[in-house]
Amino acid sequence: MIIIPILAASLQAASPAPAPPAQPALRSPSDAIAAAAPADWQDVDPADLLLFEFDGGRSVAVQLAPQFAPDHIANIKKIVRSGHWANATIYRVADNWVTQWGAGEDEQERSPPLPKDVKEQPDEEYSRPAEGLTILPSGSVDPYSQLAGFAFNWPIAMHADGRVNLAFCYGTVGVARGPAPDTGAGSELFAMIGAGSRRLDRNFAAVGRVLSGMEHLSALPRGTAPLGFYAPNQAKIPLRSVKIASDLPAAQRPRYQVMKQSSRAFADYLELASHRKDYGFGSAGAALCGVPVPVRLAP
Amino acid sequence: MIIIPILAASLQAASPAPAPPAQPALRSPSDAIAAAAPADWQDVDPADLLLFEFDGGRSVAVQLAPQFAPDHIANIKKIVRSGHWANATIYRVADNWVTQWGAGEDEQERSPPLPKDVKEQPDEEYSRPAEGLTILPSGSVDPYSQLAGFAFNWPIAMHADGRVNLAFCYGTVGVARGPAPDTGAGSELFAMIGAGSRRLDRNFAAVGRVLSGMEHLSALPRGTAPLGFYAPNQAKIPLRSVKIASDLPAAQRPRYQVMKQSSRAFADYLELASHRKDYGFGSAGAALCGVPVPVRLAP
Repeated sequence: MIIIPILAASLQAASPAPAPPAQPALRSPSDAIAAAAPADWQDVDPADLLLFEFDGGRSVAVQLAPQFAPDHIANIKKIVRSGHWANATIYRVADNWVTQWGAGEDEQERSPPLPKDVKEQPDEEYSRPAEGLTILPSGSVDPYSQLAGFAFNWPIAMHADGRVNLAFCYGTVGVARGPAPDTGAGSELFAMIGAGSRRLDRNFAAVGRVLSGMEHLSALPRGTAPLGFYAPNQAKIPLRSVKIASDLPAAQRPRYQVMKQSSRAFADYLELASHRKDYGFGSAGAALCGVPVPVRLAP
Repeated sequence: MIIIPILAASLQAASPAPAPPAQPALRSPSDAIAAAAPADWQDVDPADLLLFEFDGGRSVAVQLAPQFAPDHIANIKKIVRSGHWANATIYRVADNWVTQWGAGEDEQERSPPLPKDVKEQPDEEYSRPAEGLTILPSGSVDPYSQLAGFAFNWPIAMHADGRVNLAFCYGTVGVARGPAPDTGAGSELFAMIGAGSRRLDRNFAAVGRVLSGMEHLSALPRGTAPLGFYAPNQAKIPLRSVKIASDLPAAQRPRYQVMKQSSRAFADYLELASHRKDYGFGSAGAALCGVPVPVRLAP
């Protein structure tokens, strides 16, 4: 069998072949994740955990990031509980770009109205003051900011104005909007499914990340209408239900954990992922989105 | 309809809404592509154009890059013409990572042998001397190299040793191998379908890029066996035929073109894509893989 290496945080598989005994195997980012202690993991707050069930048994768990977009996220929680998404669908899949869902143009008319207490034109919330940063190791420069790293266990980019934005990486969830910055209330969301997502940084409200079920968004048929919208002859994918985990009985809540950026395990992971030596030439650095924060279900 | 912006080079769609007359629309990368003159485009050599037909009408066109991996590419052409891939399949789809095909482990036994003149252990060909570079605009630093840009109309990264490698971006095609660098003859190939692909730079032989049909590789069901291999209960996707375009009568060859990196249109595109101002905040730079070389079918 011919192998090629695997993204550490997305698959924690065994390394391809044992090294000969005289030459001990070099450690990989997966080894750092496997060696993490229980205290190195942070429980995801069930009040910030959205559980989507799309048609066909497609379960997608999304963690919200209220540290970055509180008004948008307050809106989204109200929308989830209101029934506004009763007829919501996945209606757009643009290759190497986004999968988008919610109450789209066609669904708006037959959807229950937005709840009255939703802020229909929230401020942009594209960045916030810097706080509690962990910076990428040396070599890992960032073409989209002055400095990239992590805050509140999320990937962030810091700018010359001292503010940081939640970075748009693979699996980041954002709020769709019209041409004006304050036109995205939260009734239509998108997840990044390709490369090149970072250019949305500070242009759209990033509100969360997919913790599991990403393949249910990334492997969908691409839309054939302009901009990757589903054409009339393509079947949109209905949203069957969506819950906030904290609204479920405690025993029914899935318990996700993300690695704490302040942990020794994360420092180890970050160093190994940025300066890989476990195969071939290794690398002199890594892009921010190339070192995703490790995620797991609590054991 | 709520919109979000689109990768310029992957979709050349109209911009979302006309600007009001008093405030002329700011130009986007798509505008630079649309304004390119016929001389700004380079025909893809049909001798370097592979036409794959996978089961289910999935056509995928791949341009080879002999400037970077001549021995591997000579191998691949021999394999294409030999019938070695008679039983080849797509047998691995790892989310946010790769789709891989060829004569895999299960197909090797019942495949015609590799042609005798294939170099079974070609040298690694992971980099080459720098030549004819176009560098990314200011601000576009690269975490994986000293300097990133383009050579021979391909994305490249230059290193402290003065050598450049063909960069692994979305849609880049590489040669799968075992743990040793010289174990990839070319009978198993992969295409990058996610973010974070750059860490393969100088670790695997990059041999080409997908010019069209990328969605037939990126939207496939993900493999459920370890490392994203298809499990026994998943249907591998047979390769029905593969041709080198120059082996077809001239009238049957699709005529692809890539934008010349030396053209004024490309300089315009590169600047607009790196310092976007056509919506929101724009950006201070761009990642190498965020500015793919524009591709089209000859008009």
